[in-house]
Amino acid sequence: MNFSEYLAEQTRIVDETLDRWVPSASAPPQTIHKAMRYSLFAGGKRIRPVLCMAASAVAGAAAGVENTACSLEMIHTYSLIHDDLPALDNDDLRRGRATNHKVFGGAMAILAGDALLTLAFEVLSRLECVDAGKKVKLAHELSSAAGTVGGMIAGQVHDLEGEGQIPTADLLDRIHRAKTGALLRASVRMGAIHAGAEEAQLEALTRYGEHTGLAFQIVDDILDVEQPSEQLGKTAGKDAQQNKITFPAVYGLDRSYRMAEQERCEAHAALGPFGERARRLHEIADLIVDRKA
Amino acid sequence: MNFSEYLAEQTRIVDETLDRWVPSASAPPQTIHKAMRYSLFAGGKRIRPVLCMAASAVAGAAAGVENTACSLEMIHTYSLIHDDLPALDNDDLRRGRATNHKVFGGAMAILAGDALLTLAFEVLSRLECVDAGKKVKLAHELSSAAGTVGGMIAGQVHDLEGEGQIPTADLLDRIHRAKTGALLRASVRMGAIHAGAEEAQLEALTRYGEHTGLAFQIVDDILDVEQPSEQLGKTAGKDAQQNKITFPAVYGLDRSYRMAEQERCEAHAALGPFGERARRLHEIADLIVDRKA
Repeated sequence: MNFSEYLAEQTRIVDETLDRWVPSASAPPQTIHKAMRYSLFAGGKRIRPVLCMAASAVAGAAAGVENTACSLEMIHTYSLIHDDLPALDNDDLRRGRATNHKVFGGAMAILAGDALLTLAFEVLSRLECVDAGKKVKLAHELSSAAGTVGGMIAGQVHDLEGEGQIPTADLLDRIHRAKTGALLRASVRMGAIHAGAEEAQLEALTRYGEHTGLAFQIVDDILDVEQPSEQLGKTAGKDAQQNKITFPAVYGLDRSYRMAEQERCEAHAALGPFGERARRLHEIADLIVDRKA
Repeated sequence: MNFSEYLAEQTRIVDETLDRWVPSASAPPQTIHKAMRYSLFAGGKRIRPVLCMAASAVAGAAAGVENTACSLEMIHTYSLIHDDLPALDNDDLRRGRATNHKVFGGAMAILAGDALLTLAFEVLSRLECVDAGKKVKLAHELSSAAGTVGGMIAGQVHDLEGEGQIPTADLLDRIHRAKTGALLRASVRMGAIHAGAEEAQLEALTRYGEHTGLAFQIVDDILDVEQPSEQLGKTAGKDAQQNKITFPAVYGLDRSYRMAEQERCEAHAALGPFGERARRLHEIADLIVDRKA
């Protein structure tokens, strides 16, 4: 199977698994389930669940990992819904479609985000064929990656508070490590934990996850400058407009490109111990750096 | 120890435990931790954690149950913060103080709610001296009680959508069971599960939790009609103003009072098997019905 066939297959598995976990749009109260599904099935790239599943395949037995993977996509999607709200980034466009609150209103968008966040932990508590000790480790990993101490919410707060401040390397580092880095790192780690990885494997995969996560954010910042909105599927140029602290703002575009290449290189290197088994993880790192949206 | 001394003692334990779990207001990013603490330590009655701890004491060994209890208070507090937002109930006053978004702004209030919701599950994943199987059961209990299928969020959606509709007994039943009932029921059940209750004990305590939860909601609706804002610590009369579906709206005040008494009576009856051991649970049911705020 070539990489694009593999990706299509993994994405299909993620979509089917999400569809099983989220109550149908006809289950009462219908509006909230419609709102949750609207954003979950809006054509996201599924990078977090795909990373999770690919990491688990390298580390060991991966039965049922698609469920663990979906908990990550739920957290990611909730964060996008809340981020787009008028009180935060006030964005109308996401993945080429109207944002959740534009369609369902602010109240329902807030509740849909809350519901996806809650469901992510319900999924982990209901995993089948996974022993309780692993479920607890997975929940701990996800909650700390999503939280306020170096996790996703910490990144959002740094990001909000950084607007208009002088863009320093230090502040940038703090934002990206938390805002996107923590969840991408957790994606890889949760796949490894689900599969029962040994400590050395978990460490190598964690390094891979950190470098891939950083590459992801650098490329994200570059695309916001370089690509038009139609290509991105979201409002382009908003970072500069909102005075966000980004890689291009701190280092300039040329150096940002070189930094992304450096991170790609280190991500590949971290996979050394796994040899050919890690082919999909290599390909995913390349995808993340080479993407155009 | 008389009941008011007991309550003061339990409340102190909850406060101290919450204080240990939530990063200090000087931990970066400071704003979010300040916002979380502002609402957590705003003088709430701690009914959910107190119920949880009292139920565990009846059911068996309860070491560390104050941590489980605090996860419930975090979920409750997040729901209040989000409920008060301009996009939802748009309330300025809560527990006698300005609401979270009035002090910290809408963005931080949304994130503070998200953070408390996330932290609740982190707490359960990090319980000490509790085996992994119990932690998973607790997380499952909490996530489903807080979710969209008969849980708290379902109740909020029914509540929002019910505004302006004809107040029927059926709709009222659906709202209260989910909106406050599910989490109060879970409070009692999680205490019992934490303590390793047997099935028959868990069933009796669940019935107690359901009747107490219903009594709580009926009294809440009555107080909104009968008490001035200063006494309530929140804006009184909002239910009627927003055409909410409440017990007084459906049944009238007199019948609502009688219904609360009926629920109190059934709550007491459910505790029969526990005899004198359940004294605190009896007292809590009375407190819930007899409270004036």
